[in-house]
Amino acid sequence: MRKIALLSFAVVALIGGLLFALGVRAADDPLPSWNDGAAKQGIIKFVTATTTEGSPTFVKPEDRIATFDNDGTLWVSHPLYAQAVFALDRVHVLAAKHPEWKGQEPFKSVLAGDREAMAKFTEGDWAIIVAATHAGISNADFIEVVKQWLGQARHPRFERPYTDLVYQPMLEVMDYLRANGFRTYIVTGGGQEFVRVFSEQVYSVPVEQVVGSSIATKYAYQDGKPILLREPKIFFVDDKVGKPVGINLFIGKRPYAAFGNSDGDREMLEWTGAGDGARLMMLVLHDDATREFAYGPANGLPDTKIGTFSQALMDQAKSQGWTVISMKDDWKQIFPWDKKPD
Amino acid sequence: MRKIALLSFAVVALIGGLLFALGVRAADDPLPSWNDGAAKQGIIKFVTATTTEGSPTFVKPEDRIATFDNDGTLWVSHPLYAQAVFALDRVHVLAAKHPEWKGQEPFKSVLAGDREAMAKFTEGDWAIIVAATHAGISNADFIEVVKQWLGQARHPRFERPYTDLVYQPMLEVMDYLRANGFRTYIVTGGGQEFVRVFSEQVYSVPVEQVVGSSIATKYAYQDGKPILLREPKIFFVDDKVGKPVGINLFIGKRPYAAFGNSDGDREMLEWTGAGDGARLMMLVLHDDATREFAYGPANGLPDTKIGTFSQALMDQAKSQGWTVISMKDDWKQIFPWDKKPD
Repeated sequence: MRKIALLSFAVVALIGGLLFALGVRAADDPLPSWNDGAAKQGIIKFVTATTTEGSPTFVKPEDRIATFDNDGTLWVSHPLYAQAVFALDRVHVLAAKHPEWKGQEPFKSVLAGDREAMAKFTEGDWAIIVAATHAGISNADFIEVVKQWLGQARHPRFERPYTDLVYQPMLEVMDYLRANGFRTYIVTGGGQEFVRVFSEQVYSVPVEQVVGSSIATKYAYQDGKPILLREPKIFFVDDKVGKPVGINLFIGKRPYAAFGNSDGDREMLEWTGAGDGARLMMLVLHDDATREFAYGPANGLPDTKIGTFSQALMDQAKSQGWTVISMKDDWKQIFPWDKKPD
Repeated sequence: MRKIALLSFAVVALIGGLLFALGVRAADDPLPSWNDGAAKQGIIKFVTATTTEGSPTFVKPEDRIATFDNDGTLWVSHPLYAQAVFALDRVHVLAAKHPEWKGQEPFKSVLAGDREAMAKFTEGDWAIIVAATHAGISNADFIEVVKQWLGQARHPRFERPYTDLVYQPMLEVMDYLRANGFRTYIVTGGGQEFVRVFSEQVYSVPVEQVVGSSIATKYAYQDGKPILLREPKIFFVDDKVGKPVGINLFIGKRPYAAFGNSDGDREMLEWTGAGDGARLMMLVLHDDATREFAYGPANGLPDTKIGTFSQALMDQAKSQGWTVISMKDDWKQIFPWDKKPD
C-alpha cells in the first residue's frame, strides 16, 4: 500500500513536471500559429544560426535585415489587391468632379461596375486610373485619403477592414525576428506611401522601413507653405528586378531573410540567397481555399494574374533550397481574429 | 598665523571645489568644440525642448529625425568636391583602357591636367565624366574602387585623407543628437553609394541612413550570380528641390533639425521649418580662411560655384529664423586632429 502510494506520488509528480515543462515550452514558442514542420523549423534554425555568438554564421546586429513582400505575403491580395480596390473606389468618389468620365474609358467601365471589362484592363488602363486617383494632390492629403478609405473599406469575402486581413503566422515571424535583433522591412510592389499609412500600426514596421513603388513627387508651394505634390508619373517600380534595386537603394545591405509569395519576389529571393552564410528564403503558397484562397499554377490551379506563383518559381524554389510555406499545412491559424488553434 | 593658515586652507578648498565643478561641467559639455554663443545655445535649447517629457514641444523618439548635408556641412568641399576629385583621378586610371580619350573632350583636358579648361566644364561635361567613372561596373565593385581611392587620395592643402577633413563640432552635434534619441541622416547632393562607403566609419551613420543622388542600377547576372550593374543614367538628384523629395522618399518623416551650408540646402531647411513645434535649421558659413576656407557671396567674397552660400540664402535665413554658424566665431576647433582648444 505504502509502496503504491509512493509510486502514485511519483507518477503524479512526473506528469505534473511534464505538463509544467510543456506549458513552459508552449509559452516560449515564438511561432505558436505554426504547425511543426520544415517551414517552422527552418525559421528557428535560421535565427539560431545567425544570432548565436561564436556560430560560424553569426551576423552582427546592424546587418540583420529581413525583407517581406506585402500583398499575398503579409496580407490578403485576393480577389483584388487592396490598392486596386482603393483606386476603383476613388474613381467613384472623384467622378462627381469629372462628369466626362461617364463616357470615357477606362473610367466608364469602372463607374458602370462592368467587371468583365475591368478584368480585361491593360497596364495602360491601370496607369490612367492610378494617375487619376493617386496623383494631383499633396502627399499629406493623399495619406489622409488612404486613411479614410482603410477605415471604411471592407473585404468582399471576409467583410472586415483590409488591415484585419494580415496573416497571424507572419506577424509572429516578424516579432520573432525583431526580438532577435533583426530589422524587418516591407519590400512591396505596391505603393510605398499607401503601405506606409498602416505599416506601423499593423506590422510594427516604421514608415522608413517601407520600400515600395512610387510616383514622382515635386516640391511646390501652396498658400506660401512647401508641399510635396504627387505627379502622374511613375518614379520607381519595386517589383521583380526592381526589388533588389530597391533594397540596395533604400537599405544598402543585402537581406539575410526574404519572404514572398509570387513571381514578383523571385529576384528578391535570388539576391538574398546569393549572399554568404546562413540565409532564409521563403514563399507563401496560397493553397487553402477553406480558410483563405487557393490559386495559381504552382497549385495546379488557374493563374488569376494576381500574385502568380508559377510552376517555374516552384521549380526554382526546389533547386535553390527555398522553403515553400503551405498555408493549409503549415499554419494553424490564418488571421489574428481567427479562432485560436486547439 | 593660525588664522591665516586656516584661511589659506579654506581658499585652497574653495578653489579646488571650483576647479572640480568646472571640470565636471566641461566633461558634461556635449559640444566642447563650440564657443558659447547663439549657435551652441540654439542647439542645446532645441534638444531640451524636444526631449523633455511634458514639454509642449516634446517629440516622440521614433520621430526624432535630424538631417545633415555632407559637402561643406560635415566635411571640406574646397577647392573641389571630393567626389569630383575621385572622378578626375579615375579618368587617369581608366585612361589606360581608353587610348581614344587623349584626343577626346572632356577627357583630353583632364588627362592634360588643364585646370583652366576643367574650370569651364559644363554640366554635360561632368555627366560624361560621371558616366565613364561611376557606371559600367557592379555596385559591389564600385564600392571597392571608392574604398581604395579614399585610402590613397590626399587633400591638396591639408595633405590628409578626405575622411580626416570632417568638422569636429558637427561630429559633436551628431553625437549629442543621437545621445538624445535622434536618428542622424545624411542628405547629400553627392552620390549615395560614394558617401555610404565611409558614413559608418566617419560619422557613425549606417548606410541605410544615407540619402543621396544616384544613378540607375540594373539587376543582371555575372557568372550565374546576380549583380547590380551601375548604368550611365541619372536616377535621382538629391539636391535643392530634390532634398525634401528624397527625405520623404527615404525617411517618410519630416526632420526636426536640418543642417546645411549652401543654396542646395535651402529647400531642406524650408521643409524642416514648415513643420510644427520646435525645429532647428542651421547653415555653416565658411568664413575662416586661416583654419579652413572663406568663400561665397554671403561673406562678401567671390562665388566659387562650389557650395554657394548666396546673399539671398542669407536673407532668407534671417527672415525665417535659421541660425548661421560662423566657423571663425562659433568653432573652437575645426578638425578632430586639430590642436585642441585651450
